[in-house]
Amino acid sequence: MARLKRYLPILQWLTGYGRDTLANDLLAAVIVTVMLIPQSLAYAMLAGLPPEVGLYASIAPLFAYALFGTSRTLAVGPVAVVSLMTAAAIGRVAPQGSPEYLGAALVLALMSGLILTLMGVARLGFLANFLSHPVISGFITASGLIIAASQLKHLLGIEVSGHNLIEVSGGLVESLRLTHWPTLLIGIGALAFLYASRRWMGPGLRRLGLPAGSADMVVRAAPILAVAVTTLASWGLELGERGVAVVGEVPAGLPPLNLPSLDMTLWRELFVAALLISVVGFVESVSVGQTLAAKRRQRIDPDQELVGLGASNIAASFTGGMPVTGGFARSVVNFDAGAETPAAGAFTAVGIAIAALLLTPLIAYLPIATLAATIIVAVLSLVDFSAIRRTWAYSRSDAMAMLVTMIVTLGHGVESGILAGVGLSLALHLYNTSRPHSAVVGRLPGTEHFRNVKRHRVETDPRLAILRVDESLYFANSRYLEDLIMSLASREPGLAHIVLACQAVNTIDASALESLEAINTRLRDAEVKLHLAEAKGPVMDRLKHTDFCRELTGRVFLSTFDAWRYLRGESQHLGQPCGGTELANAGNPD
Amino acid sequence: MARLKRYLPILQWLTGYGRDTLANDLLAAVIVTVMLIPQSLAYAMLAGLPPEVGLYASIAPLFAYALFGTSRTLAVGPVAVVSLMTAAAIGRVAPQGSPEYLGAALVLALMSGLILTLMGVARLGFLANFLSHPVISGFITASGLIIAASQLKHLLGIEVSGHNLIEVSGGLVESLRLTHWPTLLIGIGALAFLYASRRWMGPGLRRLGLPAGSADMVVRAAPILAVAVTTLASWGLELGERGVAVVGEVPAGLPPLNLPSLDMTLWRELFVAALLISVVGFVESVSVGQTLAAKRRQRIDPDQELVGLGASNIAASFTGGMPVTGGFARSVVNFDAGAETPAAGAFTAVGIAIAALLLTPLIAYLPIATLAATIIVAVLSLVDFSAIRRTWAYSRSDAMAMLVTMIVTLGHGVESGILAGVGLSLALHLYNTSRPHSAVVGRLPGTEHFRNVKRHRVETDPRLAILRVDESLYFANSRYLEDLIMSLASREPGLAHIVLACQAVNTIDASALESLEAINTRLRDAEVKLHLAEAKGPVMDRLKHTDFCRELTGRVFLSTFDAWRYLRGESQHLGQPCGGTELANAGNPD
Repeated sequence: MARLKRYLPILQWLTGYGRDTLANDLLAAVIVTVMLIPQSLAYAMLAGLPPEVGLYASIAPLFAYALFGTSRTLAVGPVAVVSLMTAAAIGRVAPQGSPEYLGAALVLALMSGLILTLMGVARLGFLANFLSHPVISGFITASGLIIAASQLKHLLGIEVSGHNLIEVSGGLVESLRLTHWPTLLIGIGALAFLYASRRWMGPGLRRLGLPAGSADMVVRAAPILAVAVTTLASWGLELGERGVAVVGEVPAGLPPLNLPSLDMTLWRELFVAALLISVVGFVESVSVGQTLAAKRRQRIDPDQELVGLGASNIAASFTGGMPVTGGFARSVVNFDAGAETPAAGAFTAVGIAIAALLLTPLIAYLPIATLAATIIVAVLSLVDFSAIRRTWAYSRSDAMAMLVTMIVTLGHGVESGILAGVGLSLALHLYNTSRPHSAVVGRLPGTEHFRNVKRHRVETDPRLAILRVDESLYFANSRYLEDLIMSLASREPGLAHIVLACQAVNTIDASALESLEAINTRLRDAEVKLHLAEAKGPVMDRLKHTDFCRELTGRVFLSTFDAWRYLRGESQHLGQPCGGTELANAGNPD
Repeated sequence: MARLKRYLPILQWLTGYGRDTLANDLLAAVIVTVMLIPQSLAYAMLAGLPPEVGLYASIAPLFAYALFGTSRTLAVGPVAVVSLMTAAAIGRVAPQGSPEYLGAALVLALMSGLILTLMGVARLGFLANFLSHPVISGFITASGLIIAASQLKHLLGIEVSGHNLIEVSGGLVESLRLTHWPTLLIGIGALAFLYASRRWMGPGLRRLGLPAGSADMVVRAAPILAVAVTTLASWGLELGERGVAVVGEVPAGLPPLNLPSLDMTLWRELFVAALLISVVGFVESVSVGQTLAAKRRQRIDPDQELVGLGASNIAASFTGGMPVTGGFARSVVNFDAGAETPAAGAFTAVGIAIAALLLTPLIAYLPIATLAATIIVAVLSLVDFSAIRRTWAYSRSDAMAMLVTMIVTLGHGVESGILAGVGLSLALHLYNTSRPHSAVVGRLPGTEHFRNVKRHRVETDPRLAILRVDESLYFANSRYLEDLIMSLASREPGLAHIVLACQAVNTIDASALESLEAINTRLRDAEVKLHLAEAKGPVMDRLKHTDFCRELTGRVFLSTFDAWRYLRGESQHLGQPCGGTELANAGNPD
């Protein structure tokens, strides 16, 4: 039963579900539904898909997440960045507007769902660690800029396409003279209203005495107001017939049931995109989920979250949807509105289903420029240039990863951007740990402490070099270690002993072990003995049974001071050959 | 001048070059030449190239290395693994035997030369760290098996092709009935002789009173004996006309000067192969070079080595050669024969040039089965299955990387094998460091020491959790850290303080910093304060100016014991807010 509860988290909360919880969840659902309708339409449009696809993607996936997800308050559905990635991926395999384009979106959702579920079942959530914070931050900022730029055409009422900033900007400038002025008026109006409501409505309402939470919620409902007003205007003034682009006829009804294509060529073409969408969506979703869970001292299980998001995407793929994930803004609204369980998500799904059944005749009049304005305002809040400055101040290599991700995303598209960022951050991590901080140390006179000979006035012995390495030893730095020690040995002709002080070494992998063997052999050829000091318990446990240990020319000491006294002949009963029994509990145990 | 000497290492030894050194270098050159002739022919054949290409690749590249290389005794030329990789790469772009096939080998050498030189100039030698020891070991073993299997057809006198073990074995079994018996006789004879000379000749000669070094050298000359005897037999018995495959007419003369193709499509197709050949060749060469240099307490400079190998490959590409690198066996022979400077390499090149001018009429009669036998004996010494067992005993994840590299190389080819190994070892490294060893610690009664609560009987305080993390904090484990701390907070309802004990934290990257910020904020929402203890000097220096430090809810303590006393109200003057001035020299400086 405990096992079942783990894989079907709904069982954890359904049994204790009472009337108060129901009331809270219902209220939150109403508020989120109002917010989600324009978002669903807008993000479907951003992905180049018909508006109803956005609504469909906000129904079945929400039920699926309520069954399998572990966050109590996460609200799933189409989100900006994933929609942009969807557009880039399926735009490569089919022309926008064709049935193949729609079909590719379903395949992408199914693949992404399967990848997420598999990652969850195989507990591969750690793969998301490949995306470092700077890469995510750079990617989100760049995506926000691309999305905002891509919506300008809708504000201007012109035709432009492209998946990176250069293509989009070029197209815009070319077509600027074709601007449709009534469309621009609506777009700018909606944009100004949305911006003003974000900027001034909240504080204003609070000054009028509304509690901060409620004021925020009214602000977040501003897009639905913009949608309602411009739709009415469009209907009353027959703007659609005057050349203003409107959403147009949307089929009323519940999501269709369909089977995604099983064309393997298509699957292969979309695989990398599906993988990246899965990982990016997961990272975005899990960080929102963790932030919200922490506020109520709840927990989410990242591996089960993968299953929850996977189920949501699979549900989307069978019901005419598109790739989905947990959205930041809507989850915060859900949380603030008092949602207590994933049931709020299910109720939201019911709300969207009602909208899909009843509101589509109205949605037909909705000007596309209004949707574009809501997208622009939403994504520009994701753009954070100050992060570059802050990261640069803290760490050059992290800032470099961020900048490269941003530049490649802007210049070459979303997938290249992420891959470049991941590749670079791995390379930089290897580079940084491949030349770990190290110091030749000497004894602070009169103490048992050993410090860097370059920074402190310390005692040294020409026959003895003590080297402290401040990093675990593994494949990225094992060659550097060889080089470091051999250069030490070749520099000091009188040297007879090298002591490796290992207090900062948490692990030694097989590459580093082979390097240590090579170092030991080469030092033996050069008639220098190699000793270890301060090795930790777990490290020593593994070393004990190796050839390195059997062939080590020197001894193993509990402390650097022991090594110092023994090797200077001041004491004879310190340290022992490697592989001795006492060492099991030496150093820094547990 | 010092700068020039660095980039042109020949200047370091040429000025002090005397008569004794000359004599030693000349002797070594003669011995290496004798050994290199059959090897050059054999490895050219392994790469599917005409035999003279192997000779050409052993002339100009040796001069280039003598100018730019830093190892005093490394002997460059065609080597087994690189030749196998060359065959796999150029076999994809042109049919063997065509002029395009030859041209592709030149392009591959040029690209590999440029890549190596660029890596050297940009000091990118650390990229070789991506190849961990287990991956190299698995790759070499698998390559040895493939190479040995690929030569069986020459022993049997039949036609088979393929670049992985499955293809090769399948072909062999199919064609077994076509075995050419005289060829098999020569092949088996050569194989038995070479094997026996390795096994028994050395010890036998030593028992007869020959010094160990000389005995080894005679053994290493065994292939030339096999070549001479079978060539004579082939000439005397006219074996070529009786269906035994012989090398056939080889143009006599010095290497031609040529310009490699600049066809960009070809360059693009060969890029990944050239990159892998460069890295594998560099790793093989640099480890031989370091081992030999250490024996005489000399040093090699890995970045300059890249330039040396790059120059060699560029030289090969303009003189009708193929990709080259430093070979293990021939470098050891060169060293043992007493070579003192790279001049020995230049003299070897002269020797090979003389062979190319004068010996080609003889080489025409050389049975291919003899070359196959020398290749098989040479590469089987690279096959090391015991490494799997040893590595498995030491580290499961390293053994896994080794096995996967081996299996993919055997089943899918050399490039896939390396890429799979590198990918897996990176993923495993991230996985292992993404869940670092950590422990909630408590106080050993009566001491200032804090140990794992699960392993020791220690004092704890329900309002206080002290967490020690035994790893640097970076993007691979930052999410785990968040999860770890938030689960700690959600498990203990009475908790008011969490102390992060950082003695094993060598660095905190930007991802981990953001995670710490998120942890601090979430803990604040949950009314738990976050404190730091035992943070090292350099880590604290960088943290001091961050938002995390400004917003940290708790204090920073020099020791865990300070934190314990302060947070239990036993002392009020311990620790300080983050960003205080005293901390600059706190913890573990330098």
